[in-house]
Amino acid sequence: MILIGERINAGFKDIKNAIINKDGDVIKEWAKKQADAKANYLDVNLGTASNKPEDLCWMIEMVQEAVSLPISIDNNKPEMLKQAMQVCKKPPLINSTTADEDRLDTLLPLVAEHKASIIGLAMDESGSPKSAEKRVENAGTIFAKIMDYGIEPHQLFLDPIVMPLKFMQEQAVEILKASSQFTLFSDPPCHIVCGLSNISNGTSQKKLINRIFVAMLIANGLDAVILDVMHEELVNTILTAELIMNKSIYADSYIEAFHS
Amino acid sequence: MILIGERINAGFKDIKNAIINKDGDVIKEWAKKQADAKANYLDVNLGTASNKPEDLCWMIEMVQEAVSLPISIDNNKPEMLKQAMQVCKKPPLINSTTADEDRLDTLLPLVAEHKASIIGLAMDESGSPKSAEKRVENAGTIFAKIMDYGIEPHQLFLDPIVMPLKFMQEQAVEILKASSQFTLFSDPPCHIVCGLSNISNGTSQKKLINRIFVAMLIANGLDAVILDVMHEELVNTILTAELIMNKSIYADSYIEAFHS
Repeated sequence: MILIGERINAGFKDIKNAIINKDGDVIKEWAKKQADAKANYLDVNLGTASNKPEDLCWMIEMVQEAVSLPISIDNNKPEMLKQAMQVCKKPPLINSTTADEDRLDTLLPLVAEHKASIIGLAMDESGSPKSAEKRVENAGTIFAKIMDYGIEPHQLFLDPIVMPLKFMQEQAVEILKASSQFTLFSDPPCHIVCGLSNISNGTSQKKLINRIFVAMLIANGLDAVILDVMHEELVNTILTAELIMNKSIYADSYIEAFHS
Repeated sequence: MILIGERINAGFKDIKNAIINKDGDVIKEWAKKQADAKANYLDVNLGTASNKPEDLCWMIEMVQEAVSLPISIDNNKPEMLKQAMQVCKKPPLINSTTADEDRLDTLLPLVAEHKASIIGLAMDESGSPKSAEKRVENAGTIFAKIMDYGIEPHQLFLDPIVMPLKFMQEQAVEILKASSQFTLFSDPPCHIVCGLSNISNGTSQKKLINRIFVAMLIANGLDAVILDVMHEELVNTILTAELIMNKSIYADSYIEAFHS
């Protein structure tokens, strides 16, 4: 499982203040904490704290001073992404593109050039998909386009677009179905990722719903997730689901071994 | 989800003693406790406490004096089953048959006659299946046979045969695959059931593994389970997975509502 640590995001007050005050220690501390918790990528999101490319680049540099993990650049402006990619020491993960052709034609050349990876959201300019079929259609558009640019399936992370159970309950089954179908695009398949916490938005059982949904998604091909890597119960759920999927070898101490 | 309470089983010492001493109160108490915990069937298993049909019938009568739930008769001797079915006030669930033709031809006429249900284990006389394909083949044999006897799909509970993760790790994926394929036999499909606790036999994380595996099975069509219905965390997992599958309607209080 590829764990993408979500915490260096200006949606969190301490990160927003750190960006405004150029306090690199806060960023470095969260980078180290998430690395210690075995994140594989660190997502970096400027949020509303700034719209200057140099601030995004500064965040990435702070992370890279603290740890050697690759960056997930969480931004939707091509110019920002372009500059941010220049400072990444390891091939980054671009978070994200939709199936919109113009956007694909802007971002995919950058992905190819940097041997980067990219999250492909199974949605297009018409908005969020309402069925598994529409998700698969959008994902197929993205998949065909990466082939055109010589990008390998393993560089693509398809996201089936998780929607809140409380408000769009019927969508959860569609998300599971779509995810399962994404695994059939190629062999070996591309990665499947999601922003997990959307599923439990507004519910009274956030942690329980997140845990159960991630297990069900793993049964349907999910192999990457943007999450709070410090949330040990969630990580233990993922470790257990991966054992069940035969992706890691069973040992009685499988949980302790991961966290040690 | 159809919850089959596993507790009235002579594998538990208090039940074994109750059978030997004909202490009906112990049986009645467990019947009430499991009914309060919202079991849909109560499994009744004589184990090694006795091999007399009248003892099995006595157990069933004790349960029926305490609660009005239907019985899951957990016994593999046709003569025992035949007598036990006579005392059941509601159509029971026969636990279980294999795909062995002789066994099917002995048990299915009883199922048809009593409008009962039956658990069909996806194994045959050659032993436990090692692949999804073999499980589907065995299940297909059972499914075809119930049709011959005029038994409806909803009277069949197919069991993909859960094996221990610790000793046969590669089987878990096969079980998930088989379960998903069982759902395609008919529309509406037959039920899919399992004896959950086998998955965690010998492991150091029994409860966690049971919870995660049941969620993954529900994503693949499981709609019945033989379990400890008093285990609230496991039941809450099942409630959450059923919400995600859109089988029950979301309410913020979905957990409290079930347990109240």
